[in-house]
Amino acid sequence: MFMRFGVLGSGIVGRSIAGKLSELDHEVAIGTRDVEALMARREPDAMGNQPFSEWSKGSPRVRTGTFADISAEAEIVINATAGASSLEALSLAGASNLSGKVLIDIANPLDFSGGMPPTLFVSNTDSLAERIQRGFPEARVVKSLNTVNARVMVEPTQIAKGEHHVFVSGDDGQSKARVSEILQSFGWKHVIDLGGLITARATEMYLPLWLALMSAAKSPMFNIKVVQDQ
Amino acid sequence: MFMRFGVLGSGIVGRSIAGKLSELDHEVAIGTRDVEALMARREPDAMGNQPFSEWSKGSPRVRTGTFADISAEAEIVINATAGASSLEALSLAGASNLSGKVLIDIANPLDFSGGMPPTLFVSNTDSLAERIQRGFPEARVVKSLNTVNARVMVEPTQIAKGEHHVFVSGDDGQSKARVSEILQSFGWKHVIDLGGLITARATEMYLPLWLALMSAAKSPMFNIKVVQDQ
Repeated sequence: MFMRFGVLGSGIVGRSIAGKLSELDHEVAIGTRDVEALMARREPDAMGNQPFSEWSKGSPRVRTGTFADISAEAEIVINATAGASSLEALSLAGASNLSGKVLIDIANPLDFSGGMPPTLFVSNTDSLAERIQRGFPEARVVKSLNTVNARVMVEPTQIAKGEHHVFVSGDDGQSKARVSEILQSFGWKHVIDLGGLITARATEMYLPLWLALMSAAKSPMFNIKVVQDQ
Repeated sequence: MFMRFGVLGSGIVGRSIAGKLSELDHEVAIGTRDVEALMARREPDAMGNQPFSEWSKGSPRVRTGTFADISAEAEIVINATAGASSLEALSLAGASNLSGKVLIDIANPLDFSGGMPPTLFVSNTDSLAERIQRGFPEARVVKSLNTVNARVMVEPTQIAKGEHHVFVSGDDGQSKARVSEILQSFGWKHVIDLGGLITARATEMYLPLWLALMSAAKSPMFNIKVVQDQ
């Protein structure tokens, strides 16, 4: 079943997700604050990623628009902005454009202001996903994919033949089921439903361990597999 | 190589660790605040665990003493107290009795005062392990085993044939190497050195995900395996 997706955020996560959805023949648009400014950039970003305009040429079926325009047209909205900018980006998208829609939140509340390793600007007794849900009560927020690198998100079978786990957290069971189907279409074999959106605290608080594991593994191409007794 | 261990804490974690070390022919003592009061208890605890005196009859080689006495005699001290009591228990053990010794910190900073799920009373910009290290600067604190259930700690091969991971964090490489050897003697096949003690934040902040996974799995008998691309 093909759907219209709006992906908020033009960084590597947004591009990866949008590219994958487009490959899967969905209709996809990437949302940004200022389309002209984004397209005018000619230099790689701080991480060495190519400018968006170049990426866009290679992905001609992915349209680009303002946060508001692409959210208005979307059936499902994906928050792939940096955590620190997410609430503002969603405000620009507009509450009415999110109302009643599944909003997949991939962002992590990373705070780089104190240097490396980053800390979390919300954690423990609250989460970014819950803040988003409170800010946009009519959206159906599902937290997912925030526990893996952008490439792993869309190519899970590249690691251990896909034998590892991704999580969903959310208060609406039907929305989690839809997100799980989308994840399966990406190649995810094992989706664990952690429960209500409060469990987004758990996956967001996993980030420090993810960062420490990336340092130890010297690669972001890994994930965790939950193993049990037989 | 047989060693003298002092295990602080008479709960399930302390008993499991002490029992295992004793099985492995180490000399082991469990430390508690008040030996008489502990031995006088006749009722199971809130979790339904048998009273310590009964457990103790089944493990006659594990001695029991005050925090201070057993720490003074130990070569390696293990903090298996509840996180909220750890600093006090270590104070009772006495800084001079910990000086120069490897101190394996298994505790998690769980705060149950707000009900379930518990939150952490320290996290994000600090950790219980770092607090302990600051409080006892001459101890060699190594954080480990706090990411799994007490039974998994000492019977890792019961799950997925031991193909999963445990972590060590600490500022002294030699101490981490000793702890890794002890873990291997428990059956752990894969020990990941996450780096300095600051990375204890990562494993302590994993606890909310552990709790959510336990709810999803309906069992505490699980662990995570880190899987990478080949």
